Amino acid sequence: MTRTATTLPTALDLAEALIACPSVTPATGLVFDCLEAQLKPLGFTVHRALSGAAPDGPVENLYAVRRGPPGSRHFAFAGHLDVVPPGEGWSSGPFLPERRGNLLYGRGAVDMKGSIAAMVAAAAQVPAEAGTLSFLITGDEEGPAVHGTLALIDHLRAVGDQPDLCLVGEPTSVQRLGDMAKIGRRGSVNVWIEVAGKEGHVAYPHLADNPVPRLVALLAELDALVLDEGTDWFQPSNLEITEIVVGNPATNVIPSKASARLSIRFNDRHTGASLSALVDEIARRHGGTTRPVVSGEAFLTEPGAFSALLVAAVEAETGITPELSTTGGTSDARFLKAVCPVIEFGLCNATMHKRDEAVAIEDLDTLARIYARVALAALAADGSGGEAAA
Amino acid sequence: MTRTATTLPTALDLAEALIACPSVTPATGLVFDCLEAQLKPLGFTVHRALSGAAPDGPVENLYAVRRGPPGSRHFAFAGHLDVVPPGEGWSSGPFLPERRGNLLYGRGAVDMKGSIAAMVAAAAQVPAEAGTLSFLITGDEEGPAVHGTLALIDHLRAVGDQPDLCLVGEPTSVQRLGDMAKIGRRGSVNVWIEVAGKEGHVAYPHLADNPVPRLVALLAELDALVLDEGTDWFQPSNLEITEIVVGNPATNVIPSKASARLSIRFNDRHTGASLSALVDEIARRHGGTTRPVVSGEAFLTEPGAFSALLVAAVEAETGITPELSTTGGTSDARFLKAVCPVIEFGLCNATMHKRDEAVAIEDLDTLARIYARVALAALAADGSGGEAAA
Ligand SMILES: [Zn+2]
Ligand SMILES: [Zn+2]
Repeated sequence: MTRTATTLPTALDLAEALIACPSVTPATGLVFDCLEAQLKPLGFTVHRALSGAAPDGPVENLYAVRRGPPGSRHFAFAGHLDVVPPGEGWSSGPFLPERRGNLLYGRGAVDMKGSIAAMVAAAAQVPAEAGTLSFLITGDEEGPAVHGTLALIDHLRAVGDQPDLCLVGEPTSVQRLGDMAKIGRRGSVNVWIEVAGKEGHVAYPHLADNPVPRLVALLAELDALVLDEGTDWFQPSNLEITEIVVGNPATNVIPSKASARLSIRFNDRHTGASLSALVDEIARRHGGTTRPVVSGEAFLTEPGAFSALLVAAVEAETGITPELSTTGGTSDARFLKAVCPVIEFGLCNATMHKRDEAVAIEDLDTLARIYARVALAALAADGSGGEAAA
Repeated sequence: MTRTATTLPTALDLAEALIACPSVTPATGLVFDCLEAQLKPLGFTVHRALSGAAPDGPVENLYAVRRGPPGSRHFAFAGHLDVVPPGEGWSSGPFLPERRGNLLYGRGAVDMKGSIAAMVAAAAQVPAEAGTLSFLITGDEEGPAVHGTLALIDHLRAVGDQPDLCLVGEPTSVQRLGDMAKIGRRGSVNVWIEVAGKEGHVAYPHLADNPVPRLVALLAELDALVLDEGTDWFQPSNLEITEIVVGNPATNVIPSKASARLSIRFNDRHTGASLSALVDEIARRHGGTTRPVVSGEAFLTEPGAFSALLVAAVEAETGITPELSTTGGTSDARFLKAVCPVIEFGLCNATMHKRDEAVAIEDLDTLARIYARVALAALAADGSGGEAAA
C-alpha cells in the first residue's frame, strides 16, 4: 500500500461525499458504499451486513478493521451514518452539501457524517504499524437502535475482536469544538401508568369510582421522590411526568380510566429495573398498574488514562480543556460500554437534528487531527484507559 | 265553553299525539301546535314566542293561562316538549308512538311528553272556578337552556302574572310512580384549570418548567377538600376531577401546559361563585388559572304546605309516600325557584334519555289524577306552600 500526502482526501471532501448520500434512519446501501470506498484505500478490510426487517429495518452495519502487528492494541472509532429526517424549511437541499461562508451545510454535517469523515481523515494519519484500528459504523442510531450497534457488537464477539478503547463521534461540543466530552450517560426509562375505575354520572358519584384522584395521589408521591443527590460525575437522577390522559369529553361523566407517562433519566446509582420496580410499588399502592420501557442503563467511564489522553489531544489542537460531562440524552455508547471503556467526543451540537444543520469547515480538519492524536495515544497506551462502570 | 266527559281525550291519547311530533332539542313548531290544540278546548289562552338564534335556537316557548276568579290563586304546571336525540337501536320508531303490552314507547314518553299529557288531562279535571291555572312549557330544557324557561319567566314578569306554586313534571319516580319527588336540586359548576410551563427536553429539565407536577399538586389539594358534611335535605357537596389533558405524545419532551376539568355538584351551603373563587384561590397558589361555568345554583323548597299537599295527592292515588329528595342532576326548576316555590314530580325515569324510552300506560292516568289533586289543593291553599331558598 503506497500513498502520498497529495492523494489524501480532506475531511471536508469526505464529509461532502457522505452527506450527498441520503440516509434517513434506518440507513443502508449508498452511504455505506461511500464509506467503504473511503476506507479501502487506507488499508481497511470492510465487513458489511444487514440486520432486521421492516418497519425498524433492514439496517446496515459496517465493521472495518486494519490490523496492526500481532499483539498490538486495538482502538475503535464508532458512529452512525443514519440521520434524522431533514424536515422542512432548509436554505439548501439537506442532501446537497453546500459551502456558504465558513460553514458546510447538510443533514448529518455534525451528527455525525462530519465526525466520521474526520475519523477517516485521522485514520489516514495513523500508520498501520501503530496498532489495530477499526470503525464500528451503524445505520440505526437515530431510530430504535435494536439492529444497529448491538449487531456490530455481536459481530465483534463472533470474530473474536476486542477493542481496548472506543471513541464515539457524537457531537458533544457545545459552544466551541473541544469544550465538552461525554464520559458517561444517564440511563433512561419510560413508565406508562394506568389506573382503572368505574364510569358514572357526576350526580351519582357513589355509583362510580373515579380513577383520577388515585392517579393524582400516586403522581404526587412519585413527584416528591428524591431518587438521589447526584454523584461526583452525575447530576441527580430526575423524574418527569410527561403525559396524563383521561380522554373524557363529557363534563357530567366520571371517567373509567386515567393514565400517565413518566420519563426517568438516572445515574449509576440506579438501574432501569430498580426504578421500574419502585414506580410499580407506588402505583400498585394506589391501585395502578405500570408498563416500563428501559431504553438504556446508565454508564460511566471513570476519568483516567483514556480521558487524560483525550483531554491532552483536544488541548494540543484547540487550547481548550474539555469538560468531562455525563449530561444529555442517550447514545450508542450505552451499548459499547459492555465491550470496552468508551468516551464520546465530536463536533458542536447547536444545529444537530435541526434544519440547516451545519459544521464549521475549519472544525472538520481540527477534529481529524484530534482524532489522530487520540488514536495514536490510545494505541500506545500500556493499560486500560479507564473503568467502565454500570 | 261546554265539554262532556266523553269528549275529553285521555292522557294516553294526548301523550301519543305529542310523541308523534319530532322535537329534538331545540324544539319549535309542530309539537307546540299540538299542545296548543289540546289546551285551547280547555279554555286556555295560549301565548307562543320564539327566542334565540342558531346554533342554540330558535327555541319555542309556550305560556298558556286559564284565569280564575279575580284574586284567586295561581298554580303553574311547568315542563318541556324538547327531547334528547333518540340515538340508534330502537325497537320501533322513536317518533312513532307504539303500545306494546302495558307500555307506550317513544322518545319523550317519560321525559316529559307523558307528564305534559297528564298535566293537560289534569287541567280538564280542574274547574276554571278553582283558580288560575297555567302551563309554562319550553322547547329548550335538554339543550343549553338559555332561551327556554328563562324567556318564559321574562314573559311572566312582563305580563304581571305570578304563580303562587309551580310543579315541574320531570320524571322523578324511580321504581314505582310516586316513590320520589324532588324538593330541591344541587347546583352545578364546571371549572377548567390550566397550568402553563415551559417546554423542553427531559434530559435538560433545568431548561424547562414542567407544569404537570403543579397541576398534580393542586388537584390533590382540591381532591382533599371537604366542602361540607351535607344538610338536613342535601347530600354533601361533591367535587369530581373529570378530565386531565397534557397532550404530549413525545416521551422525551417536557410539556408546556397541562389542564384539568372539575365538576362540582353543591348544596345550598355554597354558590357557584363561592366555589369558583375557592378553586381559583387554590389554583393560583400553584400557578394555575381557572375558568368556571356555573350551570345552576342549588335551591330548596323546604318541606311545608306545598310538599304536604303533593304527598297527600300521591298517597291518595298510589298508596305510596314519596321520598322528598334533592339528588340527581339539574332541571329547569333551578330557574323557576326565582318565581315561586317549586317541586318536581313525574313519571318513572328508568328509560329517560335511553333507547326504547317507555311509560307504563296505567301511570299516565294515575299521574293525571295526582296532578289534578295537586292543582286543586294548591289553588285552595291559603298561604305559601313552602319556602324557596337559594
Ligand atoms: Zn448522533
Ligand atoms: Zn326532562
